[in-house]
Amino acid sequence: MEALKERIKREGRNLGRGILKVDGFINHQVDAELMVAVGRELAERFGSAGATKVLTAEISGIAPALTTAMALGIPVVYARKTRPITMPERVYRQMAPSHTKGRQVELMASPEFLRPSDRILIVDDFLATGQTISALARLVEEAGAELVGIGALIEKRFEGGRALLDGLGVPIESLVVITDMSDGRIVFAE
Amino acid sequence: MEALKERIKREGRNLGRGILKVDGFINHQVDAELMVAVGRELAERFGSAGATKVLTAEISGIAPALTTAMALGIPVVYARKTRPITMPERVYRQMAPSHTKGRQVELMASPEFLRPSDRILIVDDFLATGQTISALARLVEEAGAELVGIGALIEKRFEGGRALLDGLGVPIESLVVITDMSDGRIVFAE
Repeated sequence: MEALKERIKREGRNLGRGILKVDGFINHQVDAELMVAVGRELAERFGSAGATKVLTAEISGIAPALTTAMALGIPVVYARKTRPITMPERVYRQMAPSHTKGRQVELMASPEFLRPSDRILIVDDFLATGQTISALARLVEEAGAELVGIGALIEKRFEGGRALLDGLGVPIESLVVITDMSDGRIVFAE
Repeated sequence: MEALKERIKREGRNLGRGILKVDGFINHQVDAELMVAVGRELAERFGSAGATKVLTAEISGIAPALTTAMALGIPVVYARKTRPITMPERVYRQMAPSHTKGRQVELMASPEFLRPSDRILIVDDFLATGQTISALARLVEEAGAELVGIGALIEKRFEGGRALLDGLGVPIESLVVITDMSDGRIVFAE
């Protein structure tokens, strides 16, 4: 997706160790207009998947998952990392090692909102090691729902997440693919 | 705002101690369509305020703040509660006691995205004790920016937040006002 790629070229910064700073338009300050465009693009790519819900993980997945859900006319569920008091005792729980946080993160979703009849499209801002998305996919499995696709804004292909997620057997779409961030570079896939 | 009020009447649950469960449409599962309507309504109420940015706090403020920003055609900044590695060392920081978490929460925003020239509209899902919104307002002050308004989806008026925020001298708009949640009731203001 050209608009996102151009924005990363213009404003993204390689902070080293695979860390891409995009917090001016994706994950601290959010460019609302860009996020709507991103959601439309993902909705188009997954338009025929028959998704009934979008699933993401708090925090930075919420914005693109919401705009995708808007474009598809379905709700979005964001998996929680801490249990709010409004959540029932029995919840679906999966652990995900967090690359950027250096520890395990728990993802929780209420059985009220992930049903066996649901067809789930997972959307997240990054596809890097694939660990977060993999944990989301296990939540879907735990709920007995069907995973129908995985969409990410930015894939860091050199972190190998796609290989991990390919085993799920669903379409995976990344709007921008980065193949190399060594030596301060940001190299995009053709 | 009638659509939100009706939804709370139909699906909201009073869990006691002032806790309103709305996680089927606002803060775990999000009704994308309702959130767009909510954003349009807030944008309309603050249309003449000349806001350059919407500011909210992660996590549950992100969805309505994003749709408000979309309707206004401006970016949204969400204050972080933990410092991501992409955030610079020097950040604006304010503490807010969290009613529902029973501890202090730190709200952080990068000086890159809150500028002295900014006119800030604060949007959050709840206006309860007003402590979170008050901390957001202090972030705006710390940045030397101008606060131009405060919008909330649901105000729990019996928790007194409006009295606290009135001192800021800016317009405050709540789409739905609840005046009493004692004895299992949910009483709406006329």
